[in-house]
Amino acid sequence: MITRMSSLFLRTLREDPADAEVPSHKLLVRAGYVRRVAPGGFSWLPLGLMVLRNIERVVREEMNAIGAQEIQFPALLPREPYEATGRWTEYGPNVFRLVDRKGADYLLGPTHEELFTLTVKGEYTSYKDYPVILYQIQTKYRDEARPRGGILRGREFVMKDSYSFDLDAAGLQRSYEKHRDAYIKIFDRLGLRYVIVKATSGAMGGSASEEFLAESDTGEDTYVRSSDGSYAANVEAVVTPVPPAQSIEDKPAAQVHYTPNTPTIETLVDYLNAQPEIGRTFTAADTLKNVMLKTRQPGSDEWELVCVGVPGDRDVDMKRLEAALEPAEVALLDDADFERNPFLVKGYIGPKALQDNKVRYLVDPRIVEGTAWVTGADKPDHHVVDLVCGRDFTPDGTIEAAEVREGDPAPESSGTLQAARGIEIGHIFQLGTKYSDAFALDALGADGKPIRITMGSYGIGVSRLIAAIAEQHHDDLGLVWPRVVAPADVHIVLAGKDDAVTETGEKLAAELDDAGVRVILDDRKSSPGVKFADAELVGVPTILVVGKGLTKGVVEVKDRATGERTEVPVGEAVAHLTALMR
Amino acid sequence: MITRMSSLFLRTLREDPADAEVPSHKLLVRAGYVRRVAPGGFSWLPLGLMVLRNIERVVREEMNAIGAQEIQFPALLPREPYEATGRWTEYGPNVFRLVDRKGADYLLGPTHEELFTLTVKGEYTSYKDYPVILYQIQTKYRDEARPRGGILRGREFVMKDSYSFDLDAAGLQRSYEKHRDAYIKIFDRLGLRYVIVKATSGAMGGSASEEFLAESDTGEDTYVRSSDGSYAANVEAVVTPVPPAQSIEDKPAAQVHYTPNTPTIETLVDYLNAQPEIGRTFTAADTLKNVMLKTRQPGSDEWELVCVGVPGDRDVDMKRLEAALEPAEVALLDDADFERNPFLVKGYIGPKALQDNKVRYLVDPRIVEGTAWVTGADKPDHHVVDLVCGRDFTPDGTIEAAEVREGDPAPESSGTLQAARGIEIGHIFQLGTKYSDAFALDALGADGKPIRITMGSYGIGVSRLIAAIAEQHHDDLGLVWPRVVAPADVHIVLAGKDDAVTETGEKLAAELDDAGVRVILDDRKSSPGVKFADAELVGVPTILVVGKGLTKGVVEVKDRATGERTEVPVGEAVAHLTALMR
Repeated sequence: MITRMSSLFLRTLREDPADAEVPSHKLLVRAGYVRRVAPGGFSWLPLGLMVLRNIERVVREEMNAIGAQEIQFPALLPREPYEATGRWTEYGPNVFRLVDRKGADYLLGPTHEELFTLTVKGEYTSYKDYPVILYQIQTKYRDEARPRGGILRGREFVMKDSYSFDLDAAGLQRSYEKHRDAYIKIFDRLGLRYVIVKATSGAMGGSASEEFLAESDTGEDTYVRSSDGSYAANVEAVVTPVPPAQSIEDKPAAQVHYTPNTPTIETLVDYLNAQPEIGRTFTAADTLKNVMLKTRQPGSDEWELVCVGVPGDRDVDMKRLEAALEPAEVALLDDADFERNPFLVKGYIGPKALQDNKVRYLVDPRIVEGTAWVTGADKPDHHVVDLVCGRDFTPDGTIEAAEVREGDPAPESSGTLQAARGIEIGHIFQLGTKYSDAFALDALGADGKPIRITMGSYGIGVSRLIAAIAEQHHDDLGLVWPRVVAPADVHIVLAGKDDAVTETGEKLAAELDDAGVRVILDDRKSSPGVKFADAELVGVPTILVVGKGLTKGVVEVKDRATGERTEVPVGEAVAHLTALMR
Repeated sequence: MITRMSSLFLRTLREDPADAEVPSHKLLVRAGYVRRVAPGGFSWLPLGLMVLRNIERVVREEMNAIGAQEIQFPALLPREPYEATGRWTEYGPNVFRLVDRKGADYLLGPTHEELFTLTVKGEYTSYKDYPVILYQIQTKYRDEARPRGGILRGREFVMKDSYSFDLDAAGLQRSYEKHRDAYIKIFDRLGLRYVIVKATSGAMGGSASEEFLAESDTGEDTYVRSSDGSYAANVEAVVTPVPPAQSIEDKPAAQVHYTPNTPTIETLVDYLNAQPEIGRTFTAADTLKNVMLKTRQPGSDEWELVCVGVPGDRDVDMKRLEAALEPAEVALLDDADFERNPFLVKGYIGPKALQDNKVRYLVDPRIVEGTAWVTGADKPDHHVVDLVCGRDFTPDGTIEAAEVREGDPAPESSGTLQAARGIEIGHIFQLGTKYSDAFALDALGADGKPIRITMGSYGIGVSRLIAAIAEQHHDDLGLVWPRVVAPADVHIVLAGKDDAVTETGEKLAAELDDAGVRVILDDRKSSPGVKFADAELVGVPTILVVGKGLTKGVVEVKDRATGERTEVPVGEAVAHLTALMR
């Protein structure tokens, strides 16, 4: 079918939409791919829907290739399964909820772990049934606090979500690897530049987890990579390299100092450095900052005190902290908490009082045995110097809670860390038994005993991919689609009003269409200038200009990405173009 | 791709599901096409999704063939556009509503007139832009009071809805005809037996309107057709043939009679027939029953009294009455209404009091000039006989509110009416300017003056079609799909454990797959009996049995619909089967 600009439901815009900030949003609106209908809600106009379907096709082909089977769930889901896993509550305001005419609670599915688990439980009973991978390409809903970037972060969007069901960890690992390979094929086919970063698994629970991030300065996700390129992780997942333990023997004894007027690390360091009797120079990195928190496990009413110790030159990164303590809830202490625990001397908290009062004390991985620290002395206006880890205090464990900084050493001796931004386009992770436990999904084993199924969960933001591709593939003139996602292969511009132009253009369009080449034909009465501008804006990879070259018997083939122009005799145009498509 | 039963996510059931009443529901569940997730909410398992996609493809092809362009809207829609047309209120409890985290009102789209209208208004300005037909194939939501029949009437379902936008009534008529033709092609290709019935346009407003009903005894929609087959209409739309007017001159004068103890038409007729001084025999059809109602226009607070007069042998059909009075709301009078209007003598209401008190009086079309009636005399225990229409009273108009009965004369001298049941699979209607008025959708005319756009709306219940096809295409053993919708062309049963069976079956499957034939291969270890039963249940049109015939060098081709079996030499099987596909 030839897409004719004369009848195509498309009106391009010369101006950027007022509410658009990122290039993909501006261009997808200007080029008539999408239109805003509500906050975070967009309609797909014909060109946009073609691109969406192209992406869905690539995703579907690669999912089918790993033996995944497509099914589809409703988006409107009853409360009960989400109640069973606790997610009805955990999602908080991020999920759309509603009540039907009979008063029953429903939600609009943000992700479908519960339904997939229940469905497999409904159909399968024996170990012989497994493994199985199921997926859907479906409209999903999240009540985002801040929808942004057009279809980059909408409240209604298309996702591919798949789930693997295996009998054991080795099987899960195989399903995970299959997905990882499929995702690489998908994103490669779609022409994306992306990194695979180690991730924490977030509210989904589980263990191994990686994110696929499309590289983009406008991306919402910050991640870090090592200078040698071998390591990438999102900030929450960065593992701090542990320095070697030091000898305790040669360390001076801990001494308590009167340190008046030192409300900050900076004033403390300045004060100490001004004391001749100490006779040493300290930096903020020599201090140990103890941050008091309380945590509450899901379903519990009780808060537990926790202290997190980090080198004083670093802040606690709340996102890293929360990821490290998940699924527990975390809060800072309030005044009432301090009143209830008078051993906590605000501003002067040290390891001793914590350990004397059995407060769990988790420290940054840099705080290894033999390291000496300046820290609180548990009484007002006093700090202790040369408090040595492993001699004067023993933490209850380590925690990844300190901020990550560019230039920090990267794990596995891979150089130093650099920050970068990306758009999350895929996420794969090993759920383990979180959902199979919730619904008692077991297979009957060969020995007659039940085997608890272990699951993986794998998502691709299908509609978001369009924005991610557009972020990477555009220039000042408009979109520059990779062929596989483009709404057409060739955009024919009839540049001139001669009958010869129309006739040649129509003939070439028909021949290309017959040859299986997807054609947009600009058969409007507009000026060539308008048509050229629209062709650049729409971003089909090959532009064929039928115009004044006809007097020489040629048409012009322009590569949208490189701008390269080639004159081709009319008679060879179809062969030339079909060759380009291969 | 070959669909292998050994890994297909499918477990057929031997028993009908407890909640299923109609054959399609039973079989689609038993054969593993769908599973219930919530009231009126179903998941599509792999075979079901294949069938759904096949139907969508046919619909899409025929829509594209009439030049309709596919777009897609969100399902989660803001309140404002629906407020503008009054449908936010009109839908009542039939629509799912919800509030987002910021307190804004949303609904889950039951139909998208508002959005399509606004979108066309956003893109198009000139008369040169028109006509345009847009459509989507999309998941829709209705909070049905009584979801039933599985996917026959769900609360979340797939619909194709399209909308035409034209400059004038002739254009609308062309768009309407295009859709009518496309629908005929679609339903013919899908192998459906259906009727096209005249319909009222319901809450959608508008004028010309037809429904496509799949013939089915289990259908929810009752319609009537004429005995000569030339006329079909749903009950709401049946037009009563108007009998010829009669002469007034030869009618006796009206006489009031004392008629004690005649609370019903039957007792009234018996009483009159027992009065020798009247000397005639009456039937219920000679009486005129006056039913008091009140109506309220949308957006109004005021109720208006209306009286509907029908022959006493017929009840008022509330659905017909409501359709006739739409969009007004209709209610019966309550005691307070009667108290407020003492001229209404309950049980004895006659035309005189109505007309004296300026109550709108609408009568059945059979009540023509010159007909004489027994009716209320506006005082207790009294009726009037020989009250002649056009002489003693003059109705304000006619109304199609009386029940339709089998054997009633059909319109256009097409015989008598017969009742039948069907499943609504399509609906086409001319909206006119209801929505373009609400949003001031105008095109700028050649003369610089605005032209109000006229619209049509056209729906197909895509997911319901699966149930409708299954209702028409099944037998005692299972489903019997038409090829175009079937999940495969050939279902190969490996009937035996010999290596020769497996090798031949695998080879034939591979060759058929290469030839573009869609294959299900039953490569399970189950018994031939189980495999045969599943093949019949699943309902692929051609079953290929590879089994003991191999000793003679033949395989068996079975036609699922006719049961006909043909032995074919192994070497000719692929050619034989590919020939069947054509």
